[in-house]
This record gives sequence, C-alpha cells and structure tokens, in this order.
Amino acid sequence: MTGTLHIIGMGPGDPELLTLKAARLLRAAPVVAYFAKRGQRGHARRIADGHLAAGVEELRFEYPYTIEIAAEDPRYIAELAAFYDLCAAALAARLAAGPDAALLCEGDPFFYGSAMYLFDRLAPLGPVAVVPGVPGMAGCWTQAGRPIAHGDDVLSVIPGTLEEAALAERLGACDAAVIMKVGRNLPKIQAAMRRAGLAGRALYVERGTMTDERVIPLEQATQAAPYFSMVLVPGRQRPR
Amino acid sequence: MTGTLHIIGMGPGDPELLTLKAARLLRAAPVVAYFAKRGQRGHARRIADGHLAAGVEELRFEYPYTIEIAAEDPRYIAELAAFYDLCAAALAARLAAGPDAALLCEGDPFFYGSAMYLFDRLAPLGPVAVVPGVPGMAGCWTQAGRPIAHGDDVLSVIPGTLEEAALAERLGACDAAVIMKVGRNLPKIQAAMRRAGLAGRALYVERGTMTDERVIPLEQATQAAPYFSMVLVPGRQRPR
Repeated sequence: MTGTLHIIGMGPGDPELLTLKAARLLRAAPVVAYFAKRGQRGHARRIADGHLAAGVEELRFEYPYTIEIAAEDPRYIAELAAFYDLCAAALAARLAAGPDAALLCEGDPFFYGSAMYLFDRLAPLGPVAVVPGVPGMAGCWTQAGRPIAHGDDVLSVIPGTLEEAALAERLGACDAAVIMKVGRNLPKIQAAMRRAGLAGRALYVERGTMTDERVIPLEQATQAAPYFSMVLVPGRQRPR
Repeated sequence: MTGTLHIIGMGPGDPELLTLKAARLLRAAPVVAYFAKRGQRGHARRIADGHLAAGVEELRFEYPYTIEIAAEDPRYIAELAAFYDLCAAALAARLAAGPDAALLCEGDPFFYGSAMYLFDRLAPLGPVAVVPGVPGMAGCWTQAGRPIAHGDDVLSVIPGTLEEAALAERLGACDAAVIMKVGRNLPKIQAAMRRAGLAGRALYVERGTMTDERVIPLEQATQAAPYFSMVLVPGRQRPR
C-alpha cells in the first residue's frame, strides 16, 4: 500500500460535530469507503454530505446482516470475518495504486466501531491514520442536558446484549452508566435497571444530535430504535 | 440572562480536533471564559488560539488549588463551591447585559468537566447550550493506535484517586478500562493493575494528540504528568 488510509470519526450525527481535521481530510479524499446496512444509505455517509469533493469514488460496504445476531454464534463470526476480509481487500487494492482513501466511521473509530476490524487487517500493510471523533454517547448526554460523570464517579459503558443478571450486576458496580445496543434488548434493560434500583434515574435517548432525536425517562420507552438508541444513568450529583 | 452561554468542548489538545460547531461559535463569541491552573495559561484557552475574534473579552477563572486535594475534604468542597459561585456570577453579569458568551472546556464538557458546575448554576437562569467534544481519552487511545472496546466489551472509566483495592476490584469487573487522574496515583495504579493481572496489557499515555505526547507500557512509567496522563487497558481482541 502506498496511499494512506484515513479512518475518520464522523461524530454522533449532527454534521457540524465533525472535527476540522475530519472535514479537511474528507474534502481531499479521492476515495471514500463506508459501512451501510442493507436497504439503507449508511449513517456515516449521510453525515459526510456536503463535505466530499466532486467526483469522489465511493466504496459502499453492505453488512451481510440487517439485524444483530448473537455475537457468539460461530456462523456470524465466520461470515463477518469473511465480509471484513473482502472490505479490506477492496481498500488495499485502491491504496496499492497510490491515492489516499478515507474510511468513514460513526462516532469514534476505536470505540466499538466496525472500522477497527479493517484497521487490524490493513495497518500491517501500510500507513493507516485514525482521526478520533465525538462518540455517539457524548452527543446523547449533551442533548439530554445531563452531565454524565463527576469527580470520582466510575462510568461504565455496558452492551445491552448481556444477560439481565449480568447487566444488573455491572450496573451495581458503577456510579454512572451508558448502555449501548438497546434495540430489542429494551425490556431486559428496563428489568435490569429496576433490579439495580436505578429505574428512576435512567434516560432513554434516541438519535442524539440528529433532527428527530428523542429523550424520555427509560420507564416511558416502549419500543427502541434498533440503532442510535442508548440508555444513560447520570452519575452522582454532589453538591459543589 | 438574555445572552446565551455556550459551553464548548475543546477536544483532547490538537486544535484541529475542534468540531466545526465549536470553531463557528468561538469565532462569533464576544466573551470567552476558561479555567486555568495557577501559573498556567490554561489548556482550553491554548487550544482556542487562532479561533477567537479580534478584541474578544477574556474571563480567566483561576482554580484556588494547583494540586488535587482529596475530593472528600470538606474544606476543599467548600472552597471550590465558593470559587464556582464566583465564576458563575461573573458570567451571569456578562450574560445579563445581552451578548452571548463561550465557556471553553477541555475534552467533552459533560464528561468529568469543571464546566458542569457552572452549567448547574447557570442553566436555571437563562439559555445555556452545550457543544460536545472529542474526549481526552479518545485522543489517547487513538494516538496509542489501540482500539479500546469491541463487540460486547464492558468499558469502565475509573478515577485513579480510588484506593488500591477498590481500583483492582473495578478493573476485575470490566473488559477494557481507562484510568483518569493518574498524576501522583501512578504507583498505586501500577500495583492495582498487577493485582488485577492486567499489568502486561496496560499503557500509559501522556498528552495524547499534543505535540509532546508519549505512549509507553504502564510498567515502564516512572513519573506521571499531573494532568493529561491516562492509563488504558484495551479490551479483548477477538478474532473477526
């Protein structure tokens, strides 16, 4: 690979929450790649609207699944690995020829991002540079108007895919929490939150910083968006 | 208050990691306020260099302490509360007269930021808007070249001010960790990391994204910078 791959954090959704560095690299990129779910345009690609050069070449990487399968399922792991291999090969082919390329990533690339799997595959082959971004969770707690962690709070980021008992246990071991991957795990998360005695403090935030965002008490949520939804438990509010 | 207070996340240190929204609001702000340690210029203020309008009015809020005192010390709590009261009054006086003001905040404002204490005081009095930023920890794990959390990892953010046993216990209850407030807690953090069996995986990162940044294995760190230093434990790297 002679070109540089720039893996770019695109922030939580509001296109104005791109960094100056991300905007500069996007304008200069002759090739941009991004992940998208089947039948959808791609969230990271949508954020890039208005930031790309005319005539840019686009590589759209469509996930083989539209909904989440248990991460332990061996078929899922194998098929995703094959998918990431193909994506990495497509990028490596462009980069071998010389020009730089940008891989767009929602939020921050190294924080639960799919781009990490291409980083692992491509970094040994040539120059790969990463631009951090505003994580989706920061967009959510900002829009909720709730400081998330103070002083010596422990903040845990917990995937909603865990079992109810494990969720409740993790919640009991921190002062503030962010639960990601809500979707169809919503009722289980609500049950775990009651079990941990935190139901009254928890907020449900959907599409934080996007035009159709929604912030409500968790107990009032009845159906969660499969993506871009999070549950927040703001930390201890000490007098200061 | 008739003016709007914009609390602006300034990112981890590299001025190009400001968001487009932050840069726009900084250029337009007639008044900017920021915290600084005694004898120092102020990290958030330094990031703003080159982004402020000519003739901007600056309010410098100097912390009453230069080193950290135990957060539970009643004198510390009382003196900091009085300090934040004064800062809030100074901003409220400017905002009462009409023009907007910007309060600069390192990293993300709602993530362990001092600005939260002014938000608490001023939001009841008039319009306060918050702009999320790239958190310092995202700058650190990006510069370390290490994806921090994958799949269903639990990531905990833990203050280094906790006792050694509590630190080790929290470390044992997560897959990936970020330890903030390292400074003089470094030897205790190293001991807790050994106790949790994580010493081999932990990295010490100082001034991530700044020109004089440093990334080394935690076990090789002998003296930590009092600020802008963090310890990272990257999560499980699963085959995918």
